[in-house]
Amino acid sequence: MTDETAAREPASADGTAHPLYGYSTATVADALDRVGRDGCLLGIGPLFDGARIFGRAYTVSYTTAGHPAGTVGDYLDDMRPGDVAVLDNGGRTDCTVWGDILTAMADDRGIAGTVIDGVCRDVRRALDVGYPLFTRGRYMRTGKDRVEVRDVQCPVSVGGVRIAARQLVIADADGAVTVPPDVEDDVAEICHTIHERESRIVDDVLAGRSLAEARAAHGYHLLQRNQA
Amino acid sequence: MTDETAAREPASADGTAHPLYGYSTATVADALDRVGRDGCLLGIGPLFDGARIFGRAYTVSYTTAGHPAGTVGDYLDDMRPGDVAVLDNGGRTDCTVWGDILTAMADDRGIAGTVIDGVCRDVRRALDVGYPLFTRGRYMRTGKDRVEVRDVQCPVSVGGVRIAARQLVIADADGAVTVPPDVEDDVAEICHTIHERESRIVDDVLAGRSLAEARAAHGYHLLQRNQA
Amino acid sequence: MTDETAAREPASADGTAHPLYGYSTATVADALDRVGRDGCLLGIGPLFDGARIFGRAYTVSYTTAGHPAGTVGDYLDDMRPGDVAVLDNGGRTDCTVWGDILTAMADDRGIAGTVIDGVCRDVRRALDVGYPLFTRGRYMRTGKDRVEVRDVQCPVSVGGVRIAARQLVIADADGAVTVPPDVEDDVAEICHTIHERESRIVDDVLAGRSLAEARAAHGYHLLQRNQA
Repeated sequence: MTDETAAREPASADGTAHPLYGYSTATVADALDRVGRDGCLLGIGPLFDGARIFGRAYTVSYTTAGHPAGTVGDYLDDMRPGDVAVLDNGGRTDCTVWGDILTAMADDRGIAGTVIDGVCRDVRRALDVGYPLFTRGRYMRTGKDRVEVRDVQCPVSVGGVRIAARQLVIADADGAVTVPPDVEDDVAEICHTIHERESRIVDDVLAGRSLAEARAAHGYHLLQRNQA
Repeated sequence: MTDETAAREPASADGTAHPLYGYSTATVADALDRVGRDGCLLGIGPLFDGARIFGRAYTVSYTTAGHPAGTVGDYLDDMRPGDVAVLDNGGRTDCTVWGDILTAMADDRGIAGTVIDGVCRDVRRALDVGYPLFTRGRYMRTGKDRVEVRDVQCPVSVGGVRIAARQLVIADADGAVTVPPDVEDDVAEICHTIHERESRIVDDVLAGRSLAEARAAHGYHLLQRNQA
Repeated sequence: MTDETAAREPASADGTAHPLYGYSTATVADALDRVGRDGCLLGIGPLFDGARIFGRAYTVSYTTAGHPAGTVGDYLDDMRPGDVAVLDNGGRTDCTVWGDILTAMADDRGIAGTVIDGVCRDVRRALDVGYPLFTRGRYMRTGKDRVEVRDVQCPVSVGGVRIAARQLVIADADGAVTVPPDVEDDVAEICHTIHERESRIVDDVLAGRSLAEARAAHGYHLLQRNQA
């Protein structure tokens, strides 16, 4: 598996790419700062460096299992190609909510990836097929009979950030971000500007200019400042 | 070093493989659930993704060094090929109990791997030779004159789990598990069933069946349930 | 990028290597023990296994941003080839003080690497070019308008260790250490002895000698003991 195989082109209904597709989480995070919104999931990292996600959230909320215990859910049957499984297990690191069978099926069905406020297991298969997983780590103890699905497609909290059903999720080697729907267009526009300015700063610096000059010339220190 | 070189065939006195050999830690963990026993080491991860261990524990318990300090021990002289060094340093991450010399010797003597409730150093050599290490991380400060061996081949605690001398230890990319001797046979039998059922679920799902149907057909949600 | 490309030969004014160049952080840590000095940065790990640093610190201290916020600094303009950027962001993991532009420029200018008591972003580029980063992890939220430079070339604290301007910083797969200037020569001499003795122990052990014998023959248990 190479890093490249891990990048999955997002499905789009009409064949055109989403205006945010291709921007790094760092650029999106700066744009979120500029519009004064949260979106950077804290403590959620990639299983492997080449993991990348771009898609819309299918959210699942877990809670401690009752007696008798409910199930860990067959929600994958209801997800569409290009969707991102966003699982809120309350940050628990002592039992998993993602494993072998789900990786195999998600990979087969064209799911864009999985983001978990919690841990996953059977990472060997995910590494082998290059399935993008963003989690708090790995463990092998199942969530079955420990947690159960409380609800799906409800707002969830992952890494301290609220994510609603169908909300855009973007992830790369730095971690995962989400963009609230009402600012998607603004964020995309700002990303364009930031990316362009930062590319010019890098070009200038590599051409021998000082960092202070290059940054001043392209307004670096204010690129992300909240304009509100 | 490839992932494959990291898998070490366990030594067995009579040439036959142990019935648990080859099962993932996830499958073993489910079987442990079914017999109602603990065995999943929490917070102990592989040094590299391809690291795998299958063998019997040679346990070492450390304590804070006295004055004058005792030594970090030459226990490796007493270990047999295929044994697993299981070192309980009380979860300390500020000094190491495994390094260069031990990696070189363990690799040479056919030791199956090392599991530490604590940290290791000189990981460069372990990465180069593919020696399997499962720990709380890396650091470079020695345990010499900071900790000393309290006892060997005594019951120890690693990742919250009790491990006795000669107890079976299995580790892979998800982490490490241990199986108490009195349930080894039961766990092996259950692993066989779980592995078979889960393989069928994956086959069914990849053949186009829904997850709900495939899981129901093969009793997925109860595979790990405690039968006691 | 291979591990090898990550090793950067340190710049030296007169063309001769520094006597400490080439020793592992583990060996340096033992020598620091022997002279009774601290130097092992706790909780600071490499971005990738092959990352290595050898150079002198250019220190930067950050503090929470005021209103209006100061900048994250253009200190890179003042660094010399072979210097190590040592950034004290107080261990904060919720905003970054190193990213894309700095990696590109540092790599271009021959900076030896960067050590952060905090997190970094845009790790994709650092991985691609093999730029050595030692940090508490990754995140994508910028430090701009969250933190500001308080001072440069002042003593800073990273991983619990004090590092002054121009102090030697050495880092490898185990993490990072620093050597106070007044003991550099002593530490180098001790490293020579330790490295030689440990190599002989490994040779003896691989030739079939017991660990106890080999260690006793070469004084292993006292190699790092404080002679003060």
